[in-house]
Amino acid sequence: MIESFHNPKVKLLIKLKDKKYIESNNLFIVEGQYLVHEALKNNYIKEIFLLDKEDNIYGDVTYVTIDILKKITNLTSPPKVIALCYILKEKEINGNVLMLDNIKDPGNLGTIIRSAVAFNYDTIIISKESVSLYNPKVIRATEGMLFNINIITNDLIPYINKLKKKDNYLIYGTDVKGGILPKSEPKIKHALIIGSEATGIDENLLKLCNKKLYINMNDKCESLNASISASILMYELNK
Amino acid sequence: MIESFHNPKVKLLIKLKDKKYIESNNLFIVEGQYLVHEALKNNYIKEIFLLDKEDNIYGDVTYVTIDILKKITNLTSPPKVIALCYILKEKEINGNVLMLDNIKDPGNLGTIIRSAVAFNYDTIIISKESVSLYNPKVIRATEGMLFNINIITNDLIPYINKLKKKDNYLIYGTDVKGGILPKSEPKIKHALIIGSEATGIDENLLKLCNKKLYINMNDKCESLNASISASILMYELNK
Repeated sequence: MIESFHNPKVKLLIKLKDKKYIESNNLFIVEGQYLVHEALKNNYIKEIFLLDKEDNIYGDVTYVTIDILKKITNLTSPPKVIALCYILKEKEINGNVLMLDNIKDPGNLGTIIRSAVAFNYDTIIISKESVSLYNPKVIRATEGMLFNINIITNDLIPYINKLKKKDNYLIYGTDVKGGILPKSEPKIKHALIIGSEATGIDENLLKLCNKKLYINMNDKCESLNASISASILMYELNK
Repeated sequence: MIESFHNPKVKLLIKLKDKKYIESNNLFIVEGQYLVHEALKNNYIKEIFLLDKEDNIYGDVTYVTIDILKKITNLTSPPKVIALCYILKEKEINGNVLMLDNIKDPGNLGTIIRSAVAFNYDTIIISKESVSLYNPKVIRATEGMLFNINIITNDLIPYINKLKKKDNYLIYGTDVKGGILPKSEPKIKHALIIGSEATGIDENLLKLCNKKLYINMNDKCESLNASISASILMYELNK
């Protein structure tokens, strides 16, 4: 049972609240039973930290005090279990791709990752300007689904060009003022680009798209939330 | 130009951060140009408070200092305009209805309201246990769409019974384990019930449903975010 804030493991866990330590250590934290379970299933766990012996459904764990958990979490009520995880491995692209340009809201990013798994996407490419995948709010909103999909953080344009030219992907963009309704689109290998919450899809990306999709909506409503439009389009293209 | 925190108007604005004062005064605050614009279009404005003379596109306004705006807002960077609004009038139901049972996350509620306007719903009925419509995070997430739809906060069961028996509505529930895929549903007058984020739709409500809808998804994903499933179902039923 670790009780001291000076324990090196605890010191590392506290440091990992800061993005730069996540990058330099290649480690991040997930909190709560559901996320720890998904990390475990997908072999991303380095170490599990648990409060109560009674809750040990995991096997090899390290016990810590409630004060240590409170110090590590950003939540008002601390989780009973947290895990130190290896950062996600970027893999080869091997199916449909979702590309996210400049998504700033952590709830939106996490929710989009969850929907992308639901609708059978293989890979998500997140632009470097977007909110970090390892932001605790992003991780929570994924409901553990971040471990079930290939996620790459990089510039989008080189990937678009490669997928389009070398791998014959159809590139879909979105356009709130017109475009094609997605319901009659054939099921083909594609990449779908979703633009930022504030300004939509960037002109330089839009130029590279083969088709622009549009969701029909009431005139009173200018646009949908980015996670909603991303999810509806993924749902339609994979129905 | 109001500069004093002791000004009665300012005192009221500060009090309205608290839900009980919203209810006792029948007034609430919206922040930022977009929300003020939507409130104005729909005649919900009692008074507009503005920082800079240059930004006056509204006509009759009251000028306040940046310190007063900072004191009123919960945002880190205060908006340049806020408005004191009359609380929303509950109207007669006159079209398709969305019912929300025990939605706790303010971002979800706001996003669902925005989508309900987009997909032509007439009325939203929010259960009393749900997060308050006047929570500032709910209001922000609606992007002003709360002024464009009839919103009722009340118990759901009496409304379900009335709509079903007296007005001949079809009542849709959701069921993650089976049910009907929504894509082939005819366009008929209906109420769609969405359950809570944590526990899904309540048994007592599910019993009253005529049909249970299901969104097809990858086995790795247990469920979608509540605002995503609500939006996809509204999109499908109004396509």
